Amino acid sequence: MSEEKINRYKATIAYDGTNFSGFQVQPNGRTVQGEIEKALMQINKGNFIRIHPSGRTDAGVHASGMVFHFDYPNTITVDGLMKGLNGLTPEDISFYSLEKAAPDFHARYQSSGKVYTYTIDNNKIPNPFHRLYTYHHPYVLDKNCVETALKVIEGMHDFTSFSSTKSDKENKVRTIKRATIEIDEETNIWTFRFEGDGFLYNMIRILVGTILEIADGRREVEEMQIILEAKDRNAAGATIASHGLCLKEVHYNE
Amino acid sequence: MSEEKINRYKATIAYDGTNFSGFQVQPNGRTVQGEIEKALMQINKGNFIRIHPSGRTDAGVHASGMVFHFDYPNTITVDGLMKGLNGLTPEDISFYSLEKAAPDFHARYQSSGKVYTYTIDNNKIPNPFHRLYTYHHPYVLDKNCVETALKVIEGMHDFTSFSSTKSDKENKVRTIKRATIEIDEETNIWTFRFEGDGFLYNMIRILVGTILEIADGRREVEEMQIILEAKDRNAAGATIASHGLCLKEVHYNE
Repeated sequence: MSEEKINRYKATIAYDGTNFSGFQVQPNGRTVQGEIEKALMQINKGNFIRIHPSGRTDAGVHASGMVFHFDYPNTITVDGLMKGLNGLTPEDISFYSLEKAAPDFHARYQSSGKVYTYTIDNNKIPNPFHRLYTYHHPYVLDKNCVETALKVIEGMHDFTSFSSTKSDKENKVRTIKRATIEIDEETNIWTFRFEGDGFLYNMIRILVGTILEIADGRREVEEMQIILEAKDRNAAGATIASHGLCLKEVHYNE
Repeated sequence: MSEEKINRYKATIAYDGTNFSGFQVQPNGRTVQGEIEKALMQINKGNFIRIHPSGRTDAGVHASGMVFHFDYPNTITVDGLMKGLNGLTPEDISFYSLEKAAPDFHARYQSSGKVYTYTIDNNKIPNPFHRLYTYHHPYVLDKNCVETALKVIEGMHDFTSFSSTKSDKENKVRTIKRATIEIDEETNIWTFRFEGDGFLYNMIRILVGTILEIADGRREVEEMQIILEAKDRNAAGATIASHGLCLKEVHYNE
């Protein structure tokens, strides 16, 4: 196919990860990719179209700003395609935007950074309306300890200690541009926010799992630096549950 | 049983109505009452205890402040009973408070008023994280029309027009103390709030269904007064979906 014939699209979507076995299509289990490719095939008169995400998310992980690209071979308006996709995908997926992209646009290779949040319900009694989107941790948390620990990981570091041993990435050096905590005093919801150039497999879930152990007194805050320098997954804390995690933004340089 | 032997408790709970066939126990279908009575029976060594709510809620309706009472025949601390109930009920039910009540306290007969909210997602594209708790209505809504319509129903009126024909209540006169709309400009979520001495079957869902028809231009705002005075269910608009409705508070006079 000559380049001028490629109709490449960039899509930004939200999904509630609760009832998905993750983003990536798999033989068994309902996936975000599977549902979208099914809808695309219906619009494309029964012909399959592959979508290419900026990255995968695990089972239970949510997204409010996942980006992917795909090529659509036939003539269709952007508005018509977006309406078709919103109409044919299930209620737990929403297309927020769809635009024509350069023929060489690549959602994964060209991403310059991402923002994830991880949300904690710190109330003694969990709020049932937040249970699918927050991790319930009813113990007293020290905000200063959280902020000190977050400062340790800001910047360029080797994050081997905070990467799943299942990661297939050789290079474990990543840059966290900003790591913050925001507390809603009224609802007692704590939201971690991580902005970085990229994240290793399970990295945010291990970071938050470790920082919670510091914040509730199970570990000393001074350990954060030691854990980072150990470059050993065993030095860090538990991988916290997936349902508190949300992919908020994927960034691209103009 | 002599009165001094009654240990009556007043409980305030929240539940996510999504996966319940309503509050009231029924032969088939998972209910809030059924789950709570099952937990109470476990705590009470296999002996059944009946709970008495301030009222029922339909399938899909949520509550953040439902109140009920029950009698517990054995010695137990309030704190122990509450922990047991929170531990043994599923995640979509939370006990927010439990207290000893007067032996003649009755959650239904002594209620002096209730507060309900009904929530609309007015965004063009629905937010998947709000879909279980808001009704998606993506049409342009006129706030002034909503406020004018809400003023019409404030006060003491015969609400026959806004009551399901299935209602078994003879007296359809109720007092709405306050009816308001609040718009979150950032998220474009519209929240109706109704405070009244009591509500007829489907009353809020018919009120909101009718007001939306006015707000999006399907009916004139002047019709609201005519509908109220008609005392005829056919004069009003559709019964809107249950999942936007939430019982927020049940009031009792001291």
